[in-house]
Amino acid sequence: MSKELVQDMRLLFEPNVLAFVGASNNPGKWGHRILRNILNGGFRGSVFPVNPRAREILGIRVFPNLSSIPKSIDTAIICTPAEQTLEIVRECARCGVKFAVVISAGFSEIGESGRQAEIEMVKAAGKCRLVGPNTMGIMSAKNSLYAYMSLAKPRPGPVSFISQSGNLGTQILGRGQKQAIGFSRFVSIGNEADLSVADYLSFLANDESTGVVLSYLEGLKDARTFLESASRVTSQKPLIVFKAGRTEAGARAARSHCGALASRDSICDGAFLQSGIVRASTTEEILDLAKAFSSFPLPRGKRVAILTWGGGWGVIGADICHEIGFELTKLSNKTIDKIDRLLPPYWSRGNPIDLAGSLSPENHLECLEILAKSDEVDLVLALGTISGFPDSSEQDENFLRRTIELIGEYKKPIALVKTFEGYESEFIDNHGYLIFPGPERAAAALWKMYEYYVFRNRIKER
Amino acid sequence: MSKELVQDMRLLFEPNVLAFVGASNNPGKWGHRILRNILNGGFRGSVFPVNPRAREILGIRVFPNLSSIPKSIDTAIICTPAEQTLEIVRECARCGVKFAVVISAGFSEIGESGRQAEIEMVKAAGKCRLVGPNTMGIMSAKNSLYAYMSLAKPRPGPVSFISQSGNLGTQILGRGQKQAIGFSRFVSIGNEADLSVADYLSFLANDESTGVVLSYLEGLKDARTFLESASRVTSQKPLIVFKAGRTEAGARAARSHCGALASRDSICDGAFLQSGIVRASTTEEILDLAKAFSSFPLPRGKRVAILTWGGGWGVIGADICHEIGFELTKLSNKTIDKIDRLLPPYWSRGNPIDLAGSLSPENHLECLEILAKSDEVDLVLALGTISGFPDSSEQDENFLRRTIELIGEYKKPIALVKTFEGYESEFIDNHGYLIFPGPERAAAALWKMYEYYVFRNRIKER
Repeated sequence: MSKELVQDMRLLFEPNVLAFVGASNNPGKWGHRILRNILNGGFRGSVFPVNPRAREILGIRVFPNLSSIPKSIDTAIICTPAEQTLEIVRECARCGVKFAVVISAGFSEIGESGRQAEIEMVKAAGKCRLVGPNTMGIMSAKNSLYAYMSLAKPRPGPVSFISQSGNLGTQILGRGQKQAIGFSRFVSIGNEADLSVADYLSFLANDESTGVVLSYLEGLKDARTFLESASRVTSQKPLIVFKAGRTEAGARAARSHCGALASRDSICDGAFLQSGIVRASTTEEILDLAKAFSSFPLPRGKRVAILTWGGGWGVIGADICHEIGFELTKLSNKTIDKIDRLLPPYWSRGNPIDLAGSLSPENHLECLEILAKSDEVDLVLALGTISGFPDSSEQDENFLRRTIELIGEYKKPIALVKTFEGYESEFIDNHGYLIFPGPERAAAALWKMYEYYVFRNRIKER
Repeated sequence: MSKELVQDMRLLFEPNVLAFVGASNNPGKWGHRILRNILNGGFRGSVFPVNPRAREILGIRVFPNLSSIPKSIDTAIICTPAEQTLEIVRECARCGVKFAVVISAGFSEIGESGRQAEIEMVKAAGKCRLVGPNTMGIMSAKNSLYAYMSLAKPRPGPVSFISQSGNLGTQILGRGQKQAIGFSRFVSIGNEADLSVADYLSFLANDESTGVVLSYLEGLKDARTFLESASRVTSQKPLIVFKAGRTEAGARAARSHCGALASRDSICDGAFLQSGIVRASTTEEILDLAKAFSSFPLPRGKRVAILTWGGGWGVIGADICHEIGFELTKLSNKTIDKIDRLLPPYWSRGNPIDLAGSLSPENHLECLEILAKSDEVDLVLALGTISGFPDSSEQDENFLRRTIELIGEYKKPIALVKTFEGYESEFIDNHGYLIFPGPERAAAALWKMYEYYVFRNRIKER
């Protein structure tokens, strides 16, 4: 991808002028639903619906074709039957449209005839660059552009997401919304007839509104280019990849789904590792990692302190931290003395720091600060302190608020683990990105952060 | 444990007469909260609070001591400071109390002096059998006995739960309640001064209201006896164990928590496997397994069919099923022909069965039935069919209802996987036990069910 395109791709996500070809008044059609999502989403830019047979859709004026739009179009969304796209893309080229997002399906994913049509379409596009075809759309939080089928509208934030499956991609966004994870850009890449995952990666590597890149992939058309772009990302910000089609069975399923050639896992593994790609091993871990990388600074070492309300959780936390590679830090006498003043005399005097039934939320927070501040500690896992006071949400809210402050102050990860279904409140929901559903999930995410920290240090040294 | 005790232990959970020693009018005290939970829980039996310094607590008459209670006491709950328990337990013996649940803490878990007090207490109990000390209480759904600190009140059902950590145990119950998992009995076993995990296992092996046994363990006092009792369970019903204190770090934490000697994992592994114990590997899997084993018949083979709404989920499902050991069943032409009538012409004609954007919930259900009925299929994973119609909860409810019928009709597991945060309703919440949060979690639980099926077959052959 040329430098020029890197500059330009911002306009794909932040168009001043957006055309929507295939706009429809029929509420069952994609051409209606996606347009409605754009308008309801509060897009900060001009929208020009195109349909030769309608005058007004959703209350706004409709244009018969692209040429009749009186402005220079940055991005056109194309949502028409496949057989009409060639002509429309040709018009895009004529009108100087910079990007076309081809929602239309029925191309290479259906076989040889579709593949030919796809190639022809790319040729016809000229300088206009194509997303898709067979994409479910794009999203950009900064300018409130929600140009997809989904109703997901996650919190704005640093995570940008490239998905080879539109369905799964938008569902992950919806789940992310529930977990209060902040997203910046999203693109469902479809068949990658023109723009490829490598192009999007190159753009996001330098995109200031992106702090963490997430990707769901099934197959790679050009592994070398992908790895080059991936390295461009990982040298600056984390790149989290979930790779499906890892097995022969999965790869076979992928072939009939996205038309991409799924590559066997063994080939990816080593290359991914070398490029510093953070690998998500389950669909749930995709968001665990997005959460961790977007909420915490990288741990600068592997010495963990476990603060626990409930001995059992401490045992489990110690097991999992040890198994995964963390060191349970040995508390110095100085630290023990400080905690001594806060906890009942029979507290464990060791790590895990068992709060020993102390019912004072202030003391929990003071213990947390002692640990976050300590030179002996690189990261903190706080089990059951959140959700621990079921009588009211106030203490949970205070705990969350102070945890955010402590993370900022001491620049260390402090992951909270909910040990039971406690009180729920809007404030807690809005800060769900700090809370993990189990110590295993938190420890796994933090360990991958530590590994990325090591990778970043290694490439700095070179 | 003698046969007689096995018979009797029913009375621990289903006492006709329950005494509560250490009842308190102070709402901050355990002696108040637990009694309140018993009364609010709707216990079907008589409750006699005991406190020499009160006349009435929570509206019911208080007795000065056990001897003054005019009935024969089955179970006494003791919730007093540790130093008073010896005398109370002695009185239990004198009055012929059958079981005493010693909530009081401050025994072997605090060191040598506590250990001595514990030994003395067991001696003083005579024929009265002790739960604890340092237990958080017991639960029994059949007779609505909720004698613990927690407010958890899970749905009645087949799962009985033995927990070495009271805190964690009751939190798991609370989480189980949220997932609509049905529980029968619960016991927080505390320090096991008298009754041990082996005793509870022996009872639950023959307990008709228990279909699945769940256990959270940190250490085993007597591994041989435990394994004997465990085998008694596993030859009749599944026994799911989460073993904490698996690592040196965890075992060290366990020692300061429950006073039990945590055993290293390597020792457990082989013995557990041989005894047919189903091992939960994460805290989340504890409930995944409880859910699966209590909702589904055992899969009688490993041929899985994956029904998916969304190609990406199919790829992921195929990967995970293959990796874990399942075989993606090859659909016969007969089956393909049947599905052909229901899906768009471009459907994949293979397994995973991609619903290919079909928007008819009736067709989804018909496909599901074709698969459940087919001789080629031992179990079904249905991805995204639940939560797939976000416009209304009605279709999800129908889907759940029919899935339950199909499981009953064809005696095969049908696990539903929610692929995004869809519609919520009371009905869906109440049937959450059929729904898994990701294909990985569902497949892992089903595979462990299949392994248990193989174990049961093996011991039948002997």
